[in-house]
Amino acid sequence: MKLTFSPASPFARKVRIAAIETGLIDKIELVPTAVVPGTSNHEYARINPVKKLPALILDNGDVIIDSYVIVEYLDELAGGGKLIPASGPTRWKVKSDHSLLQGMLDSMLLCRYEKVVRPQGLQWQAWLDDHWNRAWTGMARFDNKPDVLSRRFDIVQIGLVCVLGYADFRFPDCGWRKAYPRLDAFHQKMLERPSVKISVPPPA
Amino acid sequence: MKLTFSPASPFARKVRIAAIETGLIDKIELVPTAVVPGTSNHEYARINPVKKLPALILDNGDVIIDSYVIVEYLDELAGGGKLIPASGPTRWKVKSDHSLLQGMLDSMLLCRYEKVVRPQGLQWQAWLDDHWNRAWTGMARFDNKPDVLSRRFDIVQIGLVCVLGYADFRFPDCGWRKAYPRLDAFHQKMLERPSVKISVPPPA
Repeated sequence: MKLTFSPASPFARKVRIAAIETGLIDKIELVPTAVVPGTSNHEYARINPVKKLPALILDNGDVIIDSYVIVEYLDELAGGGKLIPASGPTRWKVKSDHSLLQGMLDSMLLCRYEKVVRPQGLQWQAWLDDHWNRAWTGMARFDNKPDVLSRRFDIVQIGLVCVLGYADFRFPDCGWRKAYPRLDAFHQKMLERPSVKISVPPPA
Repeated sequence: MKLTFSPASPFARKVRIAAIETGLIDKIELVPTAVVPGTSNHEYARINPVKKLPALILDNGDVIIDSYVIVEYLDELAGGGKLIPASGPTRWKVKSDHSLLQGMLDSMLLCRYEKVVRPQGLQWQAWLDDHWNRAWTGMARFDNKPDVLSRRFDIVQIGLVCVLGYADFRFPDCGWRKAYPRLDAFHQKMLERPSVKISVPPPA
């Protein structure tokens, strides 16, 4: 299998961590891929018309998108229920928590694009504030979920690691550690896992 | 159950169609909810910090997000496998096709916000072109999938109906019918379904 990949993408990081944790990483070739909003990339649009990273290209040519669906696929390949509960009420809590984290990442990327990719002079502060606030309020939500922070490693913890790592990577002065000390302790602990440590985004 | 809802949201429409098709619509109260990017909404942020529509609030207070997860939940409540294949390789094709449609809708909403919600003078044409192109290229992809357009009603067809309905609603002059005649025929046929017809967005 091939995974379109960038070490800067929190969505690609999520899949990489999941692939390591499910023991499947050796079956996946990471294919460096660059996508920049506002810039066309016809080659990648043939794989994924919405040009999002990552996409998993199976050996038969089938393409699996998006990052969550890829994690589900890898989890099932590895026997099921390792990273996402296979059944029961916890399953919907886990899926909903993951959706929230996905929305937080979407908002953080929109903030990044607004600040850095959009040409100077076209920034809209209210948009930036609104999207940053979504990510920030979401962090508060998880800071108040001790059960999520302490339980067995799963897709929610992976998603949270990717949110916090992306905050460090692109918004190093945002002060999340001071505002959310329980998330800080969680993140410290997570960095002991090889899958988390090896996938930390490179210095910006 | 309660569903935070707006008739203008293609994501809320997706869930409404799924709820009708699974026979669960009578158990769901649609709660009118307004979210506007760039404007805070503290009340709704308590339900969903990323402020996306829709959210399904269960009778025990648990909140399920996002639209796809809610459809999965309703499908399972209704016995499973009605709108999303429960197993097998088709399952991953359906999930990936749905992810693509989700990304197309995300891009179309970003286009809408860029053109109408963002203050005059702050528009960035390359961003608009890029995101519109993602939706447009995605439509081409589905126009070339006769099997998807003709098979039993499922989550991919629902998602495609929501994309095309949103194009009519917010981009009435985009010309998708002329560019994609097979999608036009598909959409015409879909409008014969009561769930699709009743959920067409109101005149803009």
